[in-house]
Amino acid sequence: MDENELIEKITKEVLAKLEKMNQEGIRKEDNTKGNASAGNISPAELAGYIDHTLLKPGATQNQFEQLCDEALQYKFKSVCVNSSWVSFVAKKLRGSSVKVCSVIGFPLGEMVTKSKAFEARSAIEHGAQELDMVMNIGALKSGNLKLVEEDIRAIKRACRSNTILKVIIETSLLTEEEKVLACEISKKAGADFVKTSTGFTGTGATVEDIALMRRVVGPDMGVKASGGIRDYKTAVAMLNAGANRIGAGGSVAIMNGVPSKEDY
Amino acid sequence: MDENELIEKITKEVLAKLEKMNQEGIRKEDNTKGNASAGNISPAELAGYIDHTLLKPGATQNQFEQLCDEALQYKFKSVCVNSSWVSFVAKKLRGSSVKVCSVIGFPLGEMVTKSKAFEARSAIEHGAQELDMVMNIGALKSGNLKLVEEDIRAIKRACRSNTILKVIIETSLLTEEEKVLACEISKKAGADFVKTSTGFTGTGATVEDIALMRRVVGPDMGVKASGGIRDYKTAVAMLNAGANRIGAGGSVAIMNGVPSKEDY
Repeated sequence: MDENELIEKITKEVLAKLEKMNQEGIRKEDNTKGNASAGNISPAELAGYIDHTLLKPGATQNQFEQLCDEALQYKFKSVCVNSSWVSFVAKKLRGSSVKVCSVIGFPLGEMVTKSKAFEARSAIEHGAQELDMVMNIGALKSGNLKLVEEDIRAIKRACRSNTILKVIIETSLLTEEEKVLACEISKKAGADFVKTSTGFTGTGATVEDIALMRRVVGPDMGVKASGGIRDYKTAVAMLNAGANRIGAGGSVAIMNGVPSKEDY
Repeated sequence: MDENELIEKITKEVLAKLEKMNQEGIRKEDNTKGNASAGNISPAELAGYIDHTLLKPGATQNQFEQLCDEALQYKFKSVCVNSSWVSFVAKKLRGSSVKVCSVIGFPLGEMVTKSKAFEARSAIEHGAQELDMVMNIGALKSGNLKLVEEDIRAIKRACRSNTILKVIIETSLLTEEEKVLACEISKKAGADFVKTSTGFTGTGATVEDIALMRRVVGPDMGVKASGGIRDYKTAVAMLNAGANRIGAGGSVAIMNGVPSKEDY
C-alpha cells in the first residue's frame, strides 16, 4: 500500500467515525424532550416563556402568517418581528393572548436615541406590546454610560404603561465587567428585562451569562435568553439558570423535541 | 511503526502542506497591487472610489477617530458609519473633501418607512451627506412593490438637494429576477446608487452582480460594490465590471496591497 492509498483509507475511516458520532449526537438530542421534563418544565409551561421569532431580512408575508398560526397553536408568549411587520402580525393575533413584540434599533443598536424612540413609538402605534431594543454597545465600550442610560430611558418614555421593554446587551461582545454594567444601567433606566443576544452578532445565550445577569438584576426583573437556542434541553437549561423568557426562531421544532436549525 | 505514530506522521504532513499552501496564497495576494495597476487604476484613483466603512456594533470612539484619520490620509471618498456616530465623524472631517455617509434601516431594512425617513432626516441634520439605506427586502419578496418604491421615495424626500442616496438591495438574498426588479424600482424612485450588500447577510459583491446591476440601471446611475472586498485586485475588478463606488472596512490594507480580514 503506498502513502496515498494509506491516507485515503485513514481519511475514510475518520469520516465514517465522525458520521457515526454525528448520528449518535442527533439520537441523543431527540431525547431532549424527556430530559427537559426531568427539569420540571412541561411543554405547555415552556411555550408560555417563548417569544416566537422571525427577524431574517427577506422573510415573506406567508412566513409571518405561518409564524402567527404557530404562535396561536402552541400558545407562545409572543411573536417577535421587525417593526415593518408589526402591523401585519398585530392584526393576525388580535383577540388572542399572544403578544406582539417588535425589535428596535436592531440588530446593531447604533442609531441615535431619537430615531430609536421614534421607531419605538411607531411600533407601539402599530400594535407592539413588547419592545426588544438593542443597547448602544459602542457607547458602552467608549465609556459614554450617560448616553447608554438616556437611550434606554427615552424608549421607556415612549412605552405605554403596559408595554414591556427588554434591553439586548449583546453578551458576546462584552467583557464580564461590561455585562454587569449593562445590566445595572438597564435596571436603573427602568427596563423590564435584560436580554442576551440579537442572534446576528457573535454567539448567543449561555447558561453562565444567564446566571450572571440574574444575579445582577435580582429576582424582580426579567432575563431573556436568546440566540442559538435550538432544542428543548437548552431552553429548559436557560430557565433553570434564571431566565424567564426565551427567544427562538425554531420554537416549533423545540416544542416537538427535535433540534432546530434556526437561531432567531 | 504503529497506527498512532502513522496518524501523527500523516497529520504533520497534511498540516505542513496546508501551511505551505496558505503561505503561497498570501504571497500571491501580495501581488494584487501590481495586478491592479495593470487594470489602469492607480492607488490614488482607487481611494477616490472607496467608502471607508465601520459598522460593527461595539466599535469605540477611538476606532472612529482612527477611521477618520485614515480617510483623511488616504483621501477616501467617504467615511461610512451607523447613524449614532455621524455627529462625531462629521466634526472630525469638517473642512475636508471626505464625505460623511450614514447607513439607514441597517442592516435588515425592515423598519417602517416613517422610521427610516426619521432616521434619514436625523442623520442629515447631524452631518450626513450620503445615505446608504437598506431596501425592504421582505416587501419585495412578498410582491409589495409599491411599499418598496414608496420606502425609497420617502428617504429621497428626506434628502437635501446635494445628499446622495444609495439603496442596498442585498443581492445574496435575491433571485436574478428580483435583482433586476430591485434595481429598476430604485432607479424609478430616484435613488442615486444601487449597492450590492450590507456585509451582514449572506455573501457580498460579485463581479457578475455588478455587471448585471450596471446593465439594468444604465450609465448615469451609481453602482456600489460592498461586502467581502478585501484586496486591491477585487476592488479593481468591481470597478472594471461597472461599479463606481466601493464599500470596504479594510480599505487601508487594500491600499497597501495586503489582504484584509475586514468585510465592512
